[in-house]
Amino acid sequence: MNFRFASFLSLCLFACAPTSLLAQASDSIIISRIFTYCLEQGQSYERLRYLSESIGNRLSGSENADKAVRWAHQTMESDSFGKCYLQDVMVPHWVRNDKELLSMQVKGKKTALNIFSLGGSIATPKGGITAGVVEVKSFEDLEKLGRKNIEGKIVFYNTPMKQRFYHTFEAYGDAGKYRWAGAQNAAKYGAVASITRSMTLALDDNPHTGGMGYADGITKIPGCAISTMGAEKLSRELASNPDLKLTLEMNCETKPDKLSHNVIAEIRGSEFPDEIVVVSGHLDSWDKGHGAHDDGAGCVQSMELLNVFRDLDIKPKRTIRVVLFMNEENGLRGGKKYAEEAKAKGEKHIAAIESDAGGFTPAGFSSTCVDESKRVYFRQWKHLFEPYAIYQWDDDGGGADIGPLKDQGTLLIGLRPDSQRYFDYHHTDIDTFDKVNRRELHLGAAAIVSLTWLLSEYGVGAASSATD
Amino acid sequence: MNFRFASFLSLCLFACAPTSLLAQASDSIIISRIFTYCLEQGQSYERLRYLSESIGNRLSGSENADKAVRWAHQTMESDSFGKCYLQDVMVPHWVRNDKELLSMQVKGKKTALNIFSLGGSIATPKGGITAGVVEVKSFEDLEKLGRKNIEGKIVFYNTPMKQRFYHTFEAYGDAGKYRWAGAQNAAKYGAVASITRSMTLALDDNPHTGGMGYADGITKIPGCAISTMGAEKLSRELASNPDLKLTLEMNCETKPDKLSHNVIAEIRGSEFPDEIVVVSGHLDSWDKGHGAHDDGAGCVQSMELLNVFRDLDIKPKRTIRVVLFMNEENGLRGGKKYAEEAKAKGEKHIAAIESDAGGFTPAGFSSTCVDESKRVYFRQWKHLFEPYAIYQWDDDGGGADIGPLKDQGTLLIGLRPDSQRYFDYHHTDIDTFDKVNRRELHLGAAAIVSLTWLLSEYGVGAASSATD
Repeated sequence: MNFRFASFLSLCLFACAPTSLLAQASDSIIISRIFTYCLEQGQSYERLRYLSESIGNRLSGSENADKAVRWAHQTMESDSFGKCYLQDVMVPHWVRNDKELLSMQVKGKKTALNIFSLGGSIATPKGGITAGVVEVKSFEDLEKLGRKNIEGKIVFYNTPMKQRFYHTFEAYGDAGKYRWAGAQNAAKYGAVASITRSMTLALDDNPHTGGMGYADGITKIPGCAISTMGAEKLSRELASNPDLKLTLEMNCETKPDKLSHNVIAEIRGSEFPDEIVVVSGHLDSWDKGHGAHDDGAGCVQSMELLNVFRDLDIKPKRTIRVVLFMNEENGLRGGKKYAEEAKAKGEKHIAAIESDAGGFTPAGFSSTCVDESKRVYFRQWKHLFEPYAIYQWDDDGGGADIGPLKDQGTLLIGLRPDSQRYFDYHHTDIDTFDKVNRRELHLGAAAIVSLTWLLSEYGVGAASSATD
Repeated sequence: MNFRFASFLSLCLFACAPTSLLAQASDSIIISRIFTYCLEQGQSYERLRYLSESIGNRLSGSENADKAVRWAHQTMESDSFGKCYLQDVMVPHWVRNDKELLSMQVKGKKTALNIFSLGGSIATPKGGITAGVVEVKSFEDLEKLGRKNIEGKIVFYNTPMKQRFYHTFEAYGDAGKYRWAGAQNAAKYGAVASITRSMTLALDDNPHTGGMGYADGITKIPGCAISTMGAEKLSRELASNPDLKLTLEMNCETKPDKLSHNVIAEIRGSEFPDEIVVVSGHLDSWDKGHGAHDDGAGCVQSMELLNVFRDLDIKPKRTIRVVLFMNEENGLRGGKKYAEEAKAKGEKHIAAIESDAGGFTPAGFSSTCVDESKRVYFRQWKHLFEPYAIYQWDDDGGGADIGPLKDQGTLLIGLRPDSQRYFDYHHTDIDTFDKVNRRELHLGAAAIVSLTWLLSEYGVGAASSATD
């Protein structure tokens, strides 16, 4: 687009610019100020740079996770005009260890294929497993093939995420079971290992790690993820050479649980201090890339609230807690511990927001609550977000870490950014800081800070109602 | 985000998935099929790869522009079930030539600063210009400084695009005048050259080229754009050393006009062949990067219509033309020629769509028309696009190339993708294929193909109305 046309367009668009909200009533003005602040002065991007590039990825139990806890604590303590503290959490401590490889032997020649061990997997025996391979598209295929065709072999789940879903999380929900339960289901038929096609809609050579589970009473076998290009290559080769042998070596292990922490900053409410609103992300990540989108983004966006409230001189009526959870990726121990303690102390969490779907342009909020009236109540604020292209208020959602608060009647809300690129980076070497756009990240921060402010101001169903 | 939570979410979201539209009436089903086709089988991404990486950037008059015309013609001819032809257009032929440099002399030491000559600029004298520099923030600053402080110097417009606008095109519209008219306004006060801070919201070392203009009766002086980091560096240095000297060398030139072409494919309407709907992008780009987002994206998205209509067996009632315009960036000759010929032949263009704001997730459509009732009519289709998160139907817009059709009463519509990242890449070395996400690009294609289909089916104001 050239300038002269854009210039014309700009004059036309000005009439509906966020700045014009200043002519409207108080809520929209405050939200406009929050968005302007985040776009102009927000610190999320530079903080994410530090968390990504100076600390790096931070799997639960790792030294980097400890560093991230200390950094977040110090940073929020210096921002905060309330208190900042750590909440102890015992977390799983799975380590990948150095060497992991998959190779394909065709006519005496070995070709390496890119894999990552899946989180929680056991290792192969030293020196690896060499075995034949059986390609399947579904768990039903296992049933059809039966033990006689699977026993002693490696099962290869080659099920692509489906392109046709608009929301990529639906495609993840559809195909992700082959990562989570691939090994346990293959083991039922005597398989010696399982390989899952990576959870991404892109065709590239980056494997995507992620959690897997074992089931009681079923033999544990190693599970790994292969890149989508690797999966295509292996499938092509198998078509012409069904007897080919794979060698898989993995050295991962699960060590004893370690002490870690949720990091919490609190601003006490001026009128209803016993009513608590949480805004959150998770500080842990997988042990690849920077964990920039997943979920460094959600952490720095949540932390932004403290800057915004301090600099715009906003005093919340209800108590706000910024919570950076530990261990979302492989245990959810932080979220569970937080909810347990809240219950034990008799705290009243009226609402909790989580940002854990990447630092992309915000598109909406999804919510869930045992009390439908609270969802109806908070949706009255839809129009306040339309100037920022936030239109999608989905019926269900929330966030993994805040999920355990559901039974306490808490209104759970998830930020829903545009999801098209999320799985390009998710759990890979390329979930790095350079994949994050400053403005997209800061718009997400503005969205959750604004909604947190509304919740702290009006609650979730009192007689008082937001002004226009 | 981990899988178990996303899996839960997926079950919840499924209820509002595009596929559920199949239960509804015909328009939404056809649009659902178009989106599914584009996401699963669309060719836009692979075509953009070819246009970007095998042809490259394609400034009007360049050899690459010729190659792009031949490629687009051949490609659409093989896709088309109508006719495909070229429309002659004489285009400006500006060339950058090799060497362009800016250096700052501080205490006898030279530091290079990244610049691009602006399109249409004259060169400096051989060996360059060495002169003092005066930094300004606005045209008003020139007036305040006056000729005595400007004559013989280089004017440096250091006016950042404003972060606070949600729509980045507004920020471009606000600051872009310093690129377009910087040289002509500086020349009024006797300046010898002008340097404009690049039009981007990012802080990096990539200069952004773009068009500039000269005014009758005002001395022509060279104009260039400096990267935003370069601008910050120069400004800092000037603060402590106001007398520093810059050396600017540019070797660009304007050659005689050349023959080029708009590339047009046409599917004749089955019921109202004399009513024409255009879907379009522009094939030319600046001479940097790949011109991938600007506007390779709009071209391949428009071309996608032919595949969709062929493979889904859609026969339009009105005539559809896919038009790939030439010379949007520095002359608009293609758009003007197209409108002139349409008028001369007495053709009736009922509507024209242009995609020229990047291959990002589609967010809306903007429109303009001399007849307001046509805009009201086409907006009845808003609900058909909401399942694809297309919510923003702005009051004004269209596209530069289709603009000249306005006087013929044509309804002009511009695709409005998410604009946050557009100016990171616009007119730079980094507007390359790798900056485009396949799904985002294909969703944009689906959006314009769907809207083109509705316009071809229902027109812009007949008694007939779209079904739900």
